[in-house]
Amino acid sequence: MEEKTKDSIIQATYELLKHKDMNSISIREIAAKANVNVATISYYFGGKAQLFSYLMESYWADLIELCNELIARQEITKEDSYEFCMRFMKKQMNSKGMVRSEQIMYQSSEIDSRLGERLKIQFKAFHKIVTTFYQKSKDESVIRAKVIALFSALCFFSYWNETVIPLVGDVDSFMEIYVRQLIDEL
Amino acid sequence: MEEKTKDSIIQATYELLKHKDMNSISIREIAAKANVNVATISYYFGGKAQLFSYLMESYWADLIELCNELIARQEITKEDSYEFCMRFMKKQMNSKGMVRSEQIMYQSSEIDSRLGERLKIQFKAFHKIVTTFYQKSKDESVIRAKVIALFSALCFFSYWNETVIPLVGDVDSFMEIYVRQLIDEL
Repeated sequence: MEEKTKDSIIQATYELLKHKDMNSISIREIAAKANVNVATISYYFGGKAQLFSYLMESYWADLIELCNELIARQEITKEDSYEFCMRFMKKQMNSKGMVRSEQIMYQSSEIDSRLGERLKIQFKAFHKIVTTFYQKSKDESVIRAKVIALFSALCFFSYWNETVIPLVGDVDSFMEIYVRQLIDEL
Repeated sequence: MEEKTKDSIIQATYELLKHKDMNSISIREIAAKANVNVATISYYFGGKAQLFSYLMESYWADLIELCNELIARQEITKEDSYEFCMRFMKKQMNSKGMVRSEQIMYQSSEIDSRLGERLKIQFKAFHKIVTTFYQKSKDESVIRAKVIALFSALCFFSYWNETVIPLVGDVDSFMEIYVRQLIDEL
């Protein structure tokens, strides 16, 4: 029962985040959507800030786990890289509200060392892919440019999903073409 | 005098947008930063919503002008494409607050036909670059994947600027490597 209530609060917040940023969502709205009292949210999470911070932490934890899995492998094939990028992109597509709220967080607060650490892990995973398959240059600046371009192409796709998708047709099959091409043409 | 006051209000808003999203900035804060009365802002712009909408419109107008210039050319060289991408990216780097506020707008409101039109113009400019230099495939899905990847790599860079920049060293020289590589390896 306890888990079920917690989960309904989390789901309600995710739903609201699809259309509003973190700052504009009130705890009353979350309570109404989850069909619980405001007091219940406070009981489980402490308050709005803690609830968002819980959501952000689990979103990050999933991404980091994914990256660490890739980093831990001795060797990676193109297929591994493709799978990794697809999962990375899908995670972001399904967490649109989180991605945006994260951007707002970056805007209003300094990048702290924990955030820096998490970004480095993601960077490291993409760095591994690029150094494995991109053979045109060993120059670290060029490699980093490649890493950031790949990373950006995957992260920004969730924004296009809302705006440019009418231009690309079926999203799922387009995503496959998109990621295959990014990896194959490295 | 009139233009000077208007300009100081605009500059103050840009400053505030570096650290806060549109929804979290009050008209009082803008007035204080610009050293004018709240009434002066209302006099020149009507109100906060109109002021933001004015800023957003001029941000968009600059980008669209840039794109239309490229679209209008009969032929484009690699150097033209490189120049275009650099200007596009710099515009976004210098308008960080606008880019974020735009994202929040997308989240809370539907993509209307005017926004759709503006996105199409940007898309068209990148489409022209890709079809001119990318010769590996004529398949339109593949071309579109290329266009979106390029577009994303340029747009997302302004986010990295805040977070990953310690990883790349001097931003200006890195930007050059970054954009050259995107164009040269198309």
